[in-house]
Amino acid sequence: MLATVIHGPRDIRVEEVPDPVLHLPTDAVVRVVASCVCGSDLWPYRGVTETEEPGRIGHEFVGVVEDVGAEVSTLRAGDFVIAPFALSDNTCAHCRNGVHTSCERGAWWGGEDEYDLPIDAGQGQAVRVPMAEGTLVATPDMPDPGQVPGLLTLSDVMGTGHHAAVAAGAGPGRTVVVVGDGAVGLCGVLAARRLGAERVIAMSRHADRQAVAREFGATDVVEERGYEGVARVEDLLGGIGADAVLECVGTKESMQQAIDAARPGGRVGYVGVPSGGAELPIRQLFGKNVSVGGGVAPVRAYLEELLADTLSGAIDPGRVFDLELPLEKAPEAYEAMDERRAIKVLLRP
Amino acid sequence: MLATVIHGPRDIRVEEVPDPVLHLPTDAVVRVVASCVCGSDLWPYRGVTETEEPGRIGHEFVGVVEDVGAEVSTLRAGDFVIAPFALSDNTCAHCRNGVHTSCERGAWWGGEDEYDLPIDAGQGQAVRVPMAEGTLVATPDMPDPGQVPGLLTLSDVMGTGHHAAVAAGAGPGRTVVVVGDGAVGLCGVLAARRLGAERVIAMSRHADRQAVAREFGATDVVEERGYEGVARVEDLLGGIGADAVLECVGTKESMQQAIDAARPGGRVGYVGVPSGGAELPIRQLFGKNVSVGGGVAPVRAYLEELLADTLSGAIDPGRVFDLELPLEKAPEAYEAMDERRAIKVLLRP
Repeated sequence: MLATVIHGPRDIRVEEVPDPVLHLPTDAVVRVVASCVCGSDLWPYRGVTETEEPGRIGHEFVGVVEDVGAEVSTLRAGDFVIAPFALSDNTCAHCRNGVHTSCERGAWWGGEDEYDLPIDAGQGQAVRVPMAEGTLVATPDMPDPGQVPGLLTLSDVMGTGHHAAVAAGAGPGRTVVVVGDGAVGLCGVLAARRLGAERVIAMSRHADRQAVAREFGATDVVEERGYEGVARVEDLLGGIGADAVLECVGTKESMQQAIDAARPGGRVGYVGVPSGGAELPIRQLFGKNVSVGGGVAPVRAYLEELLADTLSGAIDPGRVFDLELPLEKAPEAYEAMDERRAIKVLLRP
Repeated sequence: MLATVIHGPRDIRVEEVPDPVLHLPTDAVVRVVASCVCGSDLWPYRGVTETEEPGRIGHEFVGVVEDVGAEVSTLRAGDFVIAPFALSDNTCAHCRNGVHTSCERGAWWGGEDEYDLPIDAGQGQAVRVPMAEGTLVATPDMPDPGQVPGLLTLSDVMGTGHHAAVAAGAGPGRTVVVVGDGAVGLCGVLAARRLGAERVIAMSRHADRQAVAREFGATDVVEERGYEGVARVEDLLGGIGADAVLECVGTKESMQQAIDAARPGGRVGYVGVPSGGAELPIRQLFGKNVSVGGGVAPVRAYLEELLADTLSGAIDPGRVFDLELPLEKAPEAYEAMDERRAIKVLLRP
């Protein structure tokens, strides 16, 4: 079958790799219906993180179960499934606490399972899924093709934006600022509105992303950054910062922007993978009583509730995909994301 | 009148200073009944923060109103009042949000008011209180002498421990660890229990402080620190860290201890003034989904509820005072605190 392999900075290739087969009785094999490129895939692509040897890449996909191991009873061939970006058993203490990304048996796409067997990544034609019952969530019925992009966002960006909104305490009566207009930030706008926030300010300089933010329920857009951005937010909010700020980038500048935009006593929910320079200014946080929460999003914990709202049409997070390419053109997808020509690219195997 | 003046490291003097008088129609003059020394007073005492010129010191006191300005209507001469460690108008947007330490007109004992008039500090025989209606909280009746120590803790340490517990999300069904066995940490134990936590682990190596912690409701005491301390906490909590950790010290080591003791998805509530080396390890926080909240405690926001429970005897936070001295012996009080011979010293003018 075909799958993406990263060889080094700006060197993504679509190569012939072994077809997945069941190794363990708790495995499933899933034929991929759609996968995509994540902002965090750009880190090795840009050489920010090192690629020591060629490796499979991609951690977001939806597909149809082709085969299951002998111990898999809750999934069957033909089920349409969503794969969160982290594998988990959904039974350990951390999973029960809703922190599936800290699962005691957790693993990552493109990594190795608990028996040191390689795990496929998401950008391919098929995937072996360890801990299939814990990891995968099946839809009640075969979705319409038009629903596939929305369901694919539940692998990562919608659940991640939701995590930021939850961590920031977005909800009824709360004022919200979203820092970051990538797919996660846009999903954060959608999540904050879904959680009941009436006032959601998206910080964005790009007309196309502003348009999606408004579709997702942003009530205001602030183009300014830094001190001017904070002043503009305070203008909009009666002179003080926001109750809840979603940090959806992960740089030093974006984190500082988020903290500065929070009112005293406010909360920052952050989901941008912290880059090298990102840090938390403890004395400012202490003086302003601004709390900071979030982290690598346990999207599995949120999947059922977000799935229900996506299938019902209450939310349409699939709108973040503004480019669709065949898997063979994955290098072009990375280029488009890297150059910010596309918000998010969907790949069809 | 007499009051403490800090001249430099380990140089606290009790000196004759001007008697306070009403300067503004919103002022009150309060005769001090009891004041005390705070762990944070030890910072300039130890020379960790610089004393550029001699200055008044102390920010915790209770007393009796002697006189009020023409615009003060909710307080009258003879009222017994508690003074939070920060002055606030109790009406601005931040105060309404419960973040009185960010009051738009806020000020500090020993500092200057909004008209640049000097404000007395707390360790003295009397105090001019600007924004008296916003700052002071009167008891319904004149308290018994035995209630005075407990009421004095509401100036700072009890409200601060409570803030840590609130920020950490301590409550029914939550497991709690308290890092720091000073007066604030001990009050944190009391606050966590008051909020409904059934399991509260105090980290302490000192028998006298362990005894107070147990009186305050600690169910377990862990003497180990660092990795061993975390292992011991996990032993006690079924193999994972705590839901809620109160960080009540403010050093790099104590903050790291707190973060390490939290389970994935757990919350650290911190109130220890961050010392130079204190920092937040963002990548660890991100990976574990541990949130960090708290800061300089808005004790004014909590005063009414804690006052009710202190007066009713539901809590007895005054137990943190294990030494009482006359104001004239303030230098001895600082020594005893500095050498950790006393948990907290009460000063009688």
